[in-house]
Order: sequence, then structure tokens, then C-alpha cells
Amino acid sequence: MMRLSEVKKFCMKAKAASRVLANIDTLVKNRALDAMARVLIKHTSYILRENKKDICIAQEKNVSAALIDRLSLNEARISAMAKSIREIADLKDPAGDLIETRRRPNGLLIKKVRVPIGVILIIYEARPNVTSDCIALCIKSSNAVILRGGSIAIHSNRAIFDVMNKEAIKCGLPKNAISLIRDTDKKTVDALLKQSGLIDLVIPRGGESLIKEVARVSRIPVIKHYKGVCHTYVDESADLKMALEICFNAKVQRPGVCNAMETLLVNRKIAGKFLPMIIRRLENAGVEIRGCDLTRKLVKGLKAATEDDWYTEYLDLVLAVKIVKDASEAIAHIMKYGSNHSDAIVTKNKKNADLFLKEVDSACVYLNASTRFTDGGEFGKGAEMGISTDKIHARGPMGLEELTSYKYVIYGNGQVRR
Amino acid sequence: MMRLSEVKKFCMKAKAASRVLANIDTLVKNRALDAMARVLIKHTSYILRENKKDICIAQEKNVSAALIDRLSLNEARISAMAKSIREIADLKDPAGDLIETRRRPNGLLIKKVRVPIGVILIIYEARPNVTSDCIALCIKSSNAVILRGGSIAIHSNRAIFDVMNKEAIKCGLPKNAISLIRDTDKKTVDALLKQSGLIDLVIPRGGESLIKEVARVSRIPVIKHYKGVCHTYVDESADLKMALEICFNAKVQRPGVCNAMETLLVNRKIAGKFLPMIIRRLENAGVEIRGCDLTRKLVKGLKAATEDDWYTEYLDLVLAVKIVKDASEAIAHIMKYGSNHSDAIVTKNKKNADLFLKEVDSACVYLNASTRFTDGGEFGKGAEMGISTDKIHARGPMGLEELTSYKYVIYGNGQVRR
Repeated sequence: MMRLSEVKKFCMKAKAASRVLANIDTLVKNRALDAMARVLIKHTSYILRENKKDICIAQEKNVSAALIDRLSLNEARISAMAKSIREIADLKDPAGDLIETRRRPNGLLIKKVRVPIGVILIIYEARPNVTSDCIALCIKSSNAVILRGGSIAIHSNRAIFDVMNKEAIKCGLPKNAISLIRDTDKKTVDALLKQSGLIDLVIPRGGESLIKEVARVSRIPVIKHYKGVCHTYVDESADLKMALEICFNAKVQRPGVCNAMETLLVNRKIAGKFLPMIIRRLENAGVEIRGCDLTRKLVKGLKAATEDDWYTEYLDLVLAVKIVKDASEAIAHIMKYGSNHSDAIVTKNKKNADLFLKEVDSACVYLNASTRFTDGGEFGKGAEMGISTDKIHARGPMGLEELTSYKYVIYGNGQVRR
Repeated sequence: MMRLSEVKKFCMKAKAASRVLANIDTLVKNRALDAMARVLIKHTSYILRENKKDICIAQEKNVSAALIDRLSLNEARISAMAKSIREIADLKDPAGDLIETRRRPNGLLIKKVRVPIGVILIIYEARPNVTSDCIALCIKSSNAVILRGGSIAIHSNRAIFDVMNKEAIKCGLPKNAISLIRDTDKKTVDALLKQSGLIDLVIPRGGESLIKEVARVSRIPVIKHYKGVCHTYVDESADLKMALEICFNAKVQRPGVCNAMETLLVNRKIAGKFLPMIIRRLENAGVEIRGCDLTRKLVKGLKAATEDDWYTEYLDLVLAVKIVKDASEAIAHIMKYGSNHSDAIVTKNKKNADLFLKEVDSACVYLNASTRFTDGGEFGKGAEMGISTDKIHARGPMGLEELTSYKYVIYGNGQVRR
């Protein structure tokens, strides 16, 4: 555990580094990122050895297979981490971007210029690739980053961090531009969350309880994502073959992630035709269906969905199914039970599509596509710092731009206010 | 005082109204704003009568003349409030704006579209014009607004609100799109600050202690501005006549506001020439000067500035003066003691200008102009919801755009994730 005074000193160093980083050349950052990708690959066996330690401890603790999977690295995964760093290096540097220019009647020229946020604290859980993704995104956007990973991945995180940090400094990035909390004491986190003058932003990534706790304790602005209760609404006029593919993909392709579908809403006019097809296909893939009364009349033998089911993020092969009268009822359901993450409509009817896309107030609303695309990489952002279900500052997948603020630079020639 | 259950019901109504408001036509909003400006003028005598009540109570309580001035309305001020509403009506509607479009290799079309934030709570103190400004900015940007003004202006705020709200409903805006907390109990505010599922953003406006308390209690994101310790640095190569006008304006034109200069930094090479001139002129205008040791050697009879002075927002006819070696020392001083609000350099040297504008990390950095221009109206934003010294979401003067979030609307033709 770090004492409060140590935590403060630690953050002051990050703050000082952020000031240097704010004015560093794009080329220096890109070269450092490329070198960091190279050393990750070069030290694969060391990182895998450290990762093995975490896995052994986790296995002794009897954690779930899904968690072991999130924690586990192999050559392919490390190579994917390196690839992601290189992709971020190839993206446009957002720092210094001119967002807007306006000339005022009194001659003042006002430029709105993109600048880094400063120091960003990331609190995350089991996935070691978050370490390299966050380092790369923060460096490229000229932010200093403080990483605090979960105890379950501590050896892996230390190994990845040490390898990357050593190379970063060698390439001319300021010391402490990236830093890792090496202990896993909750008190250290609580002390970090009080450094509102030194840390500018906190992004917690992980389960709902972690995020709620961070939001409760933090005196620093938090951008967060509680859960993803994502819906697909299959409209009366949907291409049913397309709907079948989209719904199956949204539920089954990777059920443990936040952009997977949790509730399927089906228009009653096509329910008789569509539901038996999709339910059979999902059940064949091992999905447990929990249906509303009407659904259970149409397809026999289904478990009943309770009121709680409509609010639930299963993160598993379970799906709630409800028959609705029309697009408006689907929208009302989503606004009541949804989590403002990602929701889709499958339809050929333009009016219903427009209504849905306009009225569903989620970070991402889809027409005729799977909700699984809500992802920094899929959006062309290289990687992501997380997905925001907040409406302040950033919404949806957060990439480089979302890690910037702006400032106004005003050019005058002696103007004074009358 | 409102009970917690009442507060919750109150906020639920605002939330419901925000959903209707989100999809209302620009024309309806503009017509309502024009009508609201008209009724403000029409009911001038009623509003002035109610304002008189507040002034009488304030005078009995022996509050400062400056506070009475902030509180006081007259025909000209009400007419300025109406003018500001009309200016906001004339601005472009930000809701629905297309921010960005990208086509992905798999054919997905991703549109980033501006949307209102939802429900905004404004907590403010004595100035009744904040009531009409905030109503107009929120309506135009399609946000529902909950107003909570200070007890000192309660009669004025109720009068302005009642007149505007009645007209808003008559013009077809949803009931509860704008709402006012009619009591002035602190417990009601605390209950409001807990409604994180219903209120999306809090903007406190007023003194530092109010803002710190709101930030401490709130479970809702807060955009805030603690103080404005604004600097002007007069460089070696400054046009001294221009510097004289800029410094005088920044300090004297309206000393009680956050963008007034509080510390003057002067390059030592021109201090002998410039300081006696500016200090004489400021003293003639009633400004008390507190100087560093070097300043006091140059100009006799000045009070000494203490370490505390460099941190102080006087909001009064007081100025701290320091002689510095060069632009770098000026920047270092501003980074240490400043409040990241507004800072200016007066210089003819391009290199020093660029260095200052780049390295001073404030919301607004000025070259050869007075810091007094940091203001929504002066920036062409019609009015402002406040000035943010935060770096998350909004920075500097907040107008319509800063009251919006965005969503991603994704158009597919059957895409699923591989």
C-alpha cells in the first residue's frame, strides 16, 4: 500500500510529465509506439512466463473459465496487442488540431485548438491487453497515464508495463509519462481518486460494481459505462433472413461482452413466422430463452421472463424475448429497461427506421446491423479506452479524440472591452 | 423544503419533458423564444415590483453594494435580457447537427450526430438575468432545465420564470421543459444532486464556496469554474502603449468579474519604463497595487505582495504585480498560481507569443488583447451557461454546442461481426 503522501508525489510526477508530453513532436511519439510494439513481441516469452504466474494463482482460487480466458495471453494475443499499438501510431495525432476558427466583428481571431486532457487514471480488471492499449492511446494523444490493473493480472501487467516503459524512455518520452500502480491495495485506489488537482480524468473499466464504487469515491471526473443491456427490434417489414443473421450474431458471436444482445423485441405481425426460426437456431447454439407470455404461447416449453429479466445484462448465453405491437412500443421498452448502450432495428420501412434511430437515446443506434460493432476498432479508432454510456464529454467507443480537451487561442491587435 | 420523493417526482417530469423537447421542431423553439422575449418586456413593471422586494430584504440584511448591484433590475437590464433571448433564437439549432460521417470497409455508414444532453440543473446565486439566459440556451439546445437560484433573488426569479414559463407552454413547448425550485432550502438542493438517473448535468454558477459544495455533494457530473486568477504578461518587445490600454482595461473596466486581471507580470527589461506608467494610471483609477520586491524598488510606496496574493482572485480594484526574467518565467508563474481561466501576453515577438499560447494551459489564452473578452456573448455564442475551467466536456465560455452530447447512428445492410 502507498501512503497518501506517496500517492500525491506519484501523481505530481505524472502531472509534470504530462506538461512535457503536451508539447512533444508527433514523430517522437510514433517512433516510440513502434518501438514499444517491437519490444512486446521481442519479450513474448518473458510476458507469457509472468502471465502464467497469474493464471496459476487464479486457478488455485477456482475462478471461472471465462475469467481465466480474459486473463490468458498467448503468442497470438501478444501479437494482436503489438498490432493494435502500430495501428494507433498510424492514426492522425489529435493534439494541436484546429477545431474551429471564428473572426469577431472587433477583429479578434478566435481559434479552438485540440489539447490533451493531462493525466488520465485507468482502473481495470483482468484483461492484460488493456495495459498496452491504454498506454498507446494515451501516448498518442499526449496524455500521461496512470494504470491500476486488477490483482488477478498483476504479474502480467507489471511485465507488459516494464517492457513498454523502458522502451518509451529510451525513445525520448518523459519519465513518468506512463506509470503503473504496483500494489493492489484498495486504499491506494481511494487515495488516487482524491487527487483532483493532479489527475484530470478517471476511466474505470470492468464490472458494474467496480465502476459504481469508483464513481462513488472519486473527486475527479469519471467517464463510465455501467452495463450494456442491448436490444434488437425486428420490425414487421424486416428482411427475416437478414434479421436471423443479425440476431444470431448479436447474441452468440461473443456473449460475454457489453455490446452483445440481451433482449430481442419482435413485432407481433411477424412473430409467428420469425420467432420459431430464431429460437430454434439460438437453442441449437446453447442459448436459454426467457419469453414473454405471447412468446411462450407461440413457442412451447420456454422459461418465463420476469420483470427483472428486462433489466438484466446476462453476459452469457441467455436471451429475453418479447413480442411488441409496433416500433413505438419497442422504443418505449428500450427507453425504460435499456442502458443507453447499443440498440438495433431490423426493418425495410424507412419511417420506422427513422423513428427508432431518432428516439432511442443510446450511444449507438443501428439500422440493419449487429450491435456487436460498438467497438473502437470497428469504428476505425484503432483501439478504445472503453465505451461510455455517459452523455458528458464522450459517448460510445472512446478513441484518441475522446482523450482530448480544447483551448481557445485568441489573436488580437490591442482590443479592449468597451 | 421538498421531500426526497417530491424531488424525484419533480425530476421525472423534467426527464419526460426532455424526451419530447429532444424531437421538437426548431421553428417551434424559435417562436417560443421570441414570444418569451416579448412577454419579459411586457411584464417589466411586474418583474421590477418583485425585484424591489428582493432588494428591500437584501438592504435590511446589510449586504454589500456590489451584491445589491448584481441583484438589481431596471428597464434597461430587462430589455438586455430580452435582447439576449432573441439573439439565442437567431443562432443555429445545434440539435441534430451532423458532426462526422465515416464509411467502414465492411460498408457500415457511421454518422455522429449532435443530440441534447437531457436534463440540466443550474444552481446560481444573485443575478436574475441568469434565469432568462439559462432558459433560452436550454430551450434552444432542446434540453430541459431545472433552475435553482439563490434565496436573495427568489422573488425576481419566480417572476421571470412564471412569465416565461406560461408563454413557453402557450407556444407549444412541453410542460416542465423549464422548471424552477420555488423554495430555497439547502436540503432540496442536496436531494436534487442525488438524482443521477434523472438529471444529466449540473452547472453551478457563483462563488467558489458554492461551487466546491456542489462538487462535493453531487452524484451527477458537474461542469464548473472555481475562480479566475487571470494574468497579463507584458513582454520585452511589447508595444507599451497597447500594453497600457490592455492592462488598464483588464483590471478596471469591470473588476468584479472572473475574467478581470488579478496579476500583472512584466518583463524586467521594460519594467523601468512600463511599470511607473501603468501603476500611476491604475492608482488614479483607485487600484491598490501589491508589488514584488523588484517592483517596490522601482516604484516607491507600494504594499508588498505576499505568497498568498499570487493565488488570490481579488474581484476588486486590487492588483498583484511581479517582474519576471522572460516569457518562460511568466509561463511558470501562471502554471503555478493561475486557475486555467484566461491569460494574456502582450508582445511583438512571434517566438515568445507562440511559446506562451502553446504552453499556458488555460481555457483562453490571448495575444495582444484584454482577458475581459472571455464571455459567451463576445465569443459569438449569444449568451453563456458559465465559463468552464474544467477540461472534461466543455472549456471556456459554454454556449449552445456545449449543452449537447452526440450519438452514433449506424446504417447497415445486414452486417454481422466475424
